[in-house]
Amino acid sequence: MTTYNNPANQQLTPTQRTKIKRVPKRANYETKTIYNILDEALICHVGFTANNQPFVIPTAYGRVDDKLYIHGSPASRMLRNLNQGIEVCVTVTLLDGLVLARSAFHHSMNYRSVVIFGTATLVNDTEEKNEALRAFTEHVMPQRWQEVRQPNKQELQGTMVLSLPLTEASAKVRTGNPVDDETDYNLRIWAGVLPLQMIPGKAIADERLIEGIEVPEYVKNYSKTTSS
Amino acid sequence: MTTYNNPANQQLTPTQRTKIKRVPKRANYETKTIYNILDEALICHVGFTANNQPFVIPTAYGRVDDKLYIHGSPASRMLRNLNQGIEVCVTVTLLDGLVLARSAFHHSMNYRSVVIFGTATLVNDTEEKNEALRAFTEHVMPQRWQEVRQPNKQELQGTMVLSLPLTEASAKVRTGNPVDDETDYNLRIWAGVLPLQMIPGKAIADERLIEGIEVPEYVKNYSKTTSS
Repeated sequence: MTTYNNPANQQLTPTQRTKIKRVPKRANYETKTIYNILDEALICHVGFTANNQPFVIPTAYGRVDDKLYIHGSPASRMLRNLNQGIEVCVTVTLLDGLVLARSAFHHSMNYRSVVIFGTATLVNDTEEKNEALRAFTEHVMPQRWQEVRQPNKQELQGTMVLSLPLTEASAKVRTGNPVDDETDYNLRIWAGVLPLQMIPGKAIADERLIEGIEVPEYVKNYSKTTSS
Repeated sequence: MTTYNNPANQQLTPTQRTKIKRVPKRANYETKTIYNILDEALICHVGFTANNQPFVIPTAYGRVDDKLYIHGSPASRMLRNLNQGIEVCVTVTLLDGLVLARSAFHHSMNYRSVVIFGTATLVNDTEEKNEALRAFTEHVMPQRWQEVRQPNKQELQGTMVLSLPLTEASAKVRTGNPVDDETDYNLRIWAGVLPLQMIPGKAIADERLIEGIEVPEYVKNYSKTTSS
């Protein structure tokens, strides 16, 4: 969904933090998989520790190549000591379906998630900040940036942007049918998957929209599902 | 969406951790609002600190009255010192729409989120564990529990369940139109909201399903949107 060129697919080296221990067959360390999930999802959950207390804040983000830009302002709590950077864990989850097994115990969900560890640092450079805001906008709605009023100096100064390298990351993906205990397959209980998808409704024009402005095609045809 | 009786609506007292500082008009401390969001969403993001490192893990959950039960096993990392309980921040986010403003800067999202702080403790009592598993199953798919094979002793023993009191929690809700700078309302740029909704597709029967078992009505008519 991004308008940026993807770097060539690459296998990230699992670290102690990113190595998936539980159901390791679901693990994936390919940047192609990781970037596709990041590009399709719309919200990330940023985790950080302040005064020994964990915080998890949902926020918008954008990806440019192997960098994740996070909107800093919603997480103002974490920004106090930010000049030296802050340790974060950023998690993005796409829910793809409900997995209905024959036993309560084996109920599950189909999902694709990415967990990123690293030090997020404040973006000070105005040009990079502008690029990050472009990534935010294009991430939410491709083709939007070129059409809207772009950030002025004051807005750029007033926006906190954090940059996180996408070097220590892993994806985890579950797909397909429920897995039941062998003896349970004889039970006369319906089992299968109910797929779930984020679907756009009909665009609602702003009350103060100037008359005669049509809904853009990129809004009408919006779809967040990556085909790749 | 739960099959449990809701306790009477109650105003939670904001604490230093839950008091919403950024855009406080979006804050809501009513249990009715908080519980509705928790009941509608399917996945929570559990944040905790281990060795000074923040972790954010997506996982399933269920609510029973003023308790949140979290599936412990995906977060095995946090379970090592769990006998004394673990400080967590659990965040649940529902994305309701993309807010397209006339300026890049004022782009936003409509969302409903809940942030819960507290000490999660291991559930050891078998009966309470069974009740938690019932809550997980009914949370994912109401009416499912009574139809499936219920957990046996071994499964109950093998499932880690954490309990978190819903006493220190807050909701944050954004709805409605973009808010543009006054001068930008004259721009000939389409602005408004693109609603997003999690929509179920057609149920996919398990490959090994015994012939002749129909898709249950509660699966066919599944909807995660709370009408309340």
